[in-house]
Amino acid sequence: MSYIDELGTAAKKAGAAMSLAGMKQKNEALANIAAALDAAAETIIKENKRDIENARANGMSEAMIDRLTLTEARISGMSEGVRQVAALKDPIGEVIGGEELPNGLKVEKVRVPLGVIGIIFESRPNVTVDAAVLCLKSGNVCILRGGSDAIYSNKCLVGIMRGAIAKAGLPEDAVQLVVDTSRAVAGELMKADRYIDVLIPRGGGGLIRSVKQNATIPVIQTGEGNCHVYVDRFADIDMAVNITDNAKTQRPSVCNAIETVLVHKDVAEQFYTALEKKWNGRVRIYGDETCAKFMKTERPATEEDYATEFNDYVLSVKTVNSLDEAIEHINRYGTKHSECIVTINLDNAEKFRRCVDAAAVYVNASTRFTDGFEFGLGAEIGISTQKLHARGPMGLRELTTYKYLISGNGQIR
Amino acid sequence: MSYIDELGTAAKKAGAAMSLAGMKQKNEALANIAAALDAAAETIIKENKRDIENARANGMSEAMIDRLTLTEARISGMSEGVRQVAALKDPIGEVIGGEELPNGLKVEKVRVPLGVIGIIFESRPNVTVDAAVLCLKSGNVCILRGGSDAIYSNKCLVGIMRGAIAKAGLPEDAVQLVVDTSRAVAGELMKADRYIDVLIPRGGGGLIRSVKQNATIPVIQTGEGNCHVYVDRFADIDMAVNITDNAKTQRPSVCNAIETVLVHKDVAEQFYTALEKKWNGRVRIYGDETCAKFMKTERPATEEDYATEFNDYVLSVKTVNSLDEAIEHINRYGTKHSECIVTINLDNAEKFRRCVDAAAVYVNASTRFTDGFEFGLGAEIGISTQKLHARGPMGLRELTTYKYLISGNGQIR
Repeated sequence: MSYIDELGTAAKKAGAAMSLAGMKQKNEALANIAAALDAAAETIIKENKRDIENARANGMSEAMIDRLTLTEARISGMSEGVRQVAALKDPIGEVIGGEELPNGLKVEKVRVPLGVIGIIFESRPNVTVDAAVLCLKSGNVCILRGGSDAIYSNKCLVGIMRGAIAKAGLPEDAVQLVVDTSRAVAGELMKADRYIDVLIPRGGGGLIRSVKQNATIPVIQTGEGNCHVYVDRFADIDMAVNITDNAKTQRPSVCNAIETVLVHKDVAEQFYTALEKKWNGRVRIYGDETCAKFMKTERPATEEDYATEFNDYVLSVKTVNSLDEAIEHINRYGTKHSECIVTINLDNAEKFRRCVDAAAVYVNASTRFTDGFEFGLGAEIGISTQKLHARGPMGLRELTTYKYLISGNGQIR
Repeated sequence: MSYIDELGTAAKKAGAAMSLAGMKQKNEALANIAAALDAAAETIIKENKRDIENARANGMSEAMIDRLTLTEARISGMSEGVRQVAALKDPIGEVIGGEELPNGLKVEKVRVPLGVIGIIFESRPNVTVDAAVLCLKSGNVCILRGGSDAIYSNKCLVGIMRGAIAKAGLPEDAVQLVVDTSRAVAGELMKADRYIDVLIPRGGGGLIRSVKQNATIPVIQTGEGNCHVYVDRFADIDMAVNITDNAKTQRPSVCNAIETVLVHKDVAEQFYTALEKKWNGRVRIYGDETCAKFMKTERPATEEDYATEFNDYVLSVKTVNSLDEAIEHINRYGTKHSECIVTINLDNAEKFRRCVDAAAVYVNASTRFTDGFEFGLGAEIGISTQKLHARGPMGLRELTTYKYLISGNGQIR
């Protein structure tokens, strides 16, 4: 029996128990986890320090080390997050459809857990707890495969969660960590479709592509965000500048920040002049000739730039001749995440909404709102950029599937 | 530009046009298709004969040739099916959620087409028309890859549909056929995630496994049906016999027919005796010792039998000691399709419903009801046996995704 077989078999068994777990028991497990995290803060920080030391020795950048680091405040934030998830409505058991057929069969469509969820992520230990508690609350079992850089932190956090789950009378194997972080085991995990129902990669484009290439398990792609603002010829220029500024600079590292602004030629001078005044060099611009007339640009944007998620104070700028050209550009280079048009023209707004292929399409608002909390889902496990199953922010409901329950008294065909 | 690049680019372009197509135009295209099929029946039969001749020359079995054959009656059936799909409610544009956020942003969750759907299927030309019209009605574009054995039939049918679509002012590339049926091109198709949003294999287990192994596009698995009836110790024996008989013999070749019956030891003698009386050798039985005491059995069932979809008048039989043993057997060998318990005990029924992991779980009714028409979906493109996106019969709604449309007046974060 391979290591993945062991994890998978245990997960299946835990899944069977979880399918019988009630709301009360699951919430008790979550409350236990929150309390246990708070109580173990010192130990967690100690284990996290081992990861940080190794990361420094391996030459990890300070920005990455910051993402890896757990402090008392961050641990409090984590346990607070767990309590928030506990307070959310349990999606399991919701009857989402049903009817009585002419032959007397009663058909009900009922929300049930997905089953076993595999989550592959990079070195952010907060994801370990976030992902596990969302899975738990929605009746799912998870197998977590975090980055090797965070292995001591993850072992510690998962150990704490497992103890807290067992204390609530639920199977500790509802949360498992892949402690062998070798590539071979990751490869095996992606093909373990006999145990795992869904695979969610959380991380950069490289990770997501690798999972897509190798997995035989259904995958939900999340988090790649090459987003755009299109400034229509009927735009309110002040609004366009404010939205562009917010969508680019309020938090450039996140997936719902924009990477390219497309500007209709008729308002190019006005918009570029106003944006230059607002930023005054704060954002590096890769812009075309028209843009360069009114803004300090570093160089023209290349095809590669258009396809790049900078996650930084960098923006590609393109002057377009028409709404159609903007839509085509977005559908070609975008990652189907969040797209915005600034316009006061109803027809153009409507065409943009219909033709742009993305999870969230905005008229006159910043793309930064694409977020589980902002959309009222309470929490999110990621933002799906694929069209199958769930699109956009994924909350608890998106971690479920359904089952048809049919009751009869001997009906045959 | 490779052949798949050509098809893919054309599909993307057609998809953009389809996202603007209204209900009326789509229904006109469907009406045109139905009329064109009827009008071209002779030509279709002629082209189909070429496939049949080749199939005979290649030694195809008569059962398979029957599935390949188109007659005037079958073509009428096809066009009638198209008219039924035209009459169904258009799922596109349905608002399935939404609210106004505290900051004044209006969020709407609206049903939209999936985009480009790849369908890989074997030599059943009726699937060509079925699949294409369901995609069309739901605003999707499809790329059809049928078996080489049906290539003349498929070329003819697709040509007819494309003409009918163009006549309604919609892009003929909304329906495309992969005419190069080589394995290399099929392999390329499965990896064309830059063009295709979803891949639906329709066919046997071998085809589905190959697609799962090779695709980088999200896949919806359909149609594998290793289904069970469990006869509980609290079963009404007459009802159990009738349901078993119906689920096995009414149409053994379909995916919602059963392959194994599990019988509680306390009612084994009664049930086996009654079933033997009913069938009297009509179905070949692979049964254990207990079963062999009361029924003519061919041999004991093997592990492999338990995992086999016979699609024939063959049944594996196993006597079990408990409900739990039955559930475990089903979750181990089943394909998550349709499962049935016969019992009058409420607790046992409830445990079976919760613990059996399948798209459709029946209490006291034949598994044969798992079907889009029976469930009132109007038509189906297949029965999903996976948990992501759609489970069980997939109708028009299951061929859609959603999009968040957000309207503001300058909101920023």
